[in-house]
Amino acid sequence: MVVKSELKLIKSLQHKKYRNEHGLFVVEGKKVVEEVINSKIKLHKLFAVAPEKIQLEGVQTFSISNKELSQVSSLKSPNGFIGVFYIPKLEEEIVSDWILVLDGVQDPGNLGTIIRLCDWFGVTDIVCSLETVDCYNSKVLQATMGSITRVNIHYRAIDSFLNTTKLPVFGTFVDGASVKDSKLPKKGIMIMGNEGKGISDLVAKFCTDKLAIPQFGNSTTESLNVASATAILLHEIRR
Amino acid sequence: MVVKSELKLIKSLQHKKYRNEHGLFVVEGKKVVEEVINSKIKLHKLFAVAPEKIQLEGVQTFSISNKELSQVSSLKSPNGFIGVFYIPKLEEEIVSDWILVLDGVQDPGNLGTIIRLCDWFGVTDIVCSLETVDCYNSKVLQATMGSITRVNIHYRAIDSFLNTTKLPVFGTFVDGASVKDSKLPKKGIMIMGNEGKGISDLVAKFCTDKLAIPQFGNSTTESLNVASATAILLHEIRR
Repeated sequence: MVVKSELKLIKSLQHKKYRNEHGLFVVEGKKVVEEVINSKIKLHKLFAVAPEKIQLEGVQTFSISNKELSQVSSLKSPNGFIGVFYIPKLEEEIVSDWILVLDGVQDPGNLGTIIRLCDWFGVTDIVCSLETVDCYNSKVLQATMGSITRVNIHYRAIDSFLNTTKLPVFGTFVDGASVKDSKLPKKGIMIMGNEGKGISDLVAKFCTDKLAIPQFGNSTTESLNVASATAILLHEIRR
Repeated sequence: MVVKSELKLIKSLQHKKYRNEHGLFVVEGKKVVEEVINSKIKLHKLFAVAPEKIQLEGVQTFSISNKELSQVSSLKSPNGFIGVFYIPKLEEEIVSDWILVLDGVQDPGNLGTIIRLCDWFGVTDIVCSLETVDCYNSKVLQATMGSITRVNIHYRAIDSFLNTTKLPVFGTFVDGASVKDSKLPKKGIMIMGNEGKGISDLVAKFCTDKLAIPQFGNSTTESLNVASATAILLHEIRR
């Protein structure tokens, strides 16, 4: 059974303001819900349309009707599962060898893909500017495919963060050196900019090394998608 | 002025069936519409909410009201421009040095990103299986950012296509050789599989070379997004 106040709470968690107020976020879909339950992230409450069919050891599952689920779901076609989890508290210190810094990435699908890429390439920490889309946004979570449980995502004023680091700071710029010819160190910071505006002036001045991903042929396309560029750069740092 | 039958036609073009029947497709948004008008793709008819503000040499622009536009637009917030274009006829022969083959890519955003990547890396021809999402789907067009005008996209039975080629055929597989250690030739075919199922058995048997994108660390993530994997592989073929 789900009471009215709970439905109201779950629905409110579609908004960042209420996620931060309550320290909770929502995950939908059986596979991802299970992955989050089996991670270090703590479960608040799990709801299912057919709770008797769920066999998760030591996890109590509460009943929710299809009608109630469609009221609170962010999906067009809700699929029977909705889990409410506590937003994890992160260690202040960042220990990843390479750190990815996002300077205002706006598109939830891009952020989700980038989190998944960091998981693949063993980059355990992402530092996001305060303007970057919230990682507990439902569309981000859909795109991460569970990688959110294995990557730490810190929201900070990135100029202050970059001001204190002793690591080399890499960013991509039109006039940068080809990443193919650059020998990248074992530790460093890689900055990715906003979809339309790239890396901001405020952040660009902290870059110690300017890189570029070379185009091929006589293409006139303006830029790579930020998630595509991240894929190539993370592949290069692990070369 | 836009007549009722035209509105009906434009709306119908949201469906692949009617796009193929009429040989027409729809592009929205000023920047992309202009890019398509200035390409080899032929304009059928251009509509704008404020046609008097448009200054495109030799292009007649027809008036459409905001209400009419919202009836036929595929966007939540239509932005004043809608162009109807002829689907281009492609040369039978494919002359690109590298050819990308898509074996059932389903997500429109992924296909759009892949087309944009091909444009960046000078891969001028994509061969899509008949199960691959249609490239004139509005969500694909939104993601291509105009690259659709510079990349030829062929829909074919890809087993027949692969059966006739003399080029080496590369595909990514869990047990493939690391792409970092592989020396790729100047010409070839790269196959990318479906988001969930990867490369189908029917197509896998045509692969002469099996590649893998190496993971890093002890990550347990299952796979890279197909567009992310394409970014890395196209970067590698142009190394």
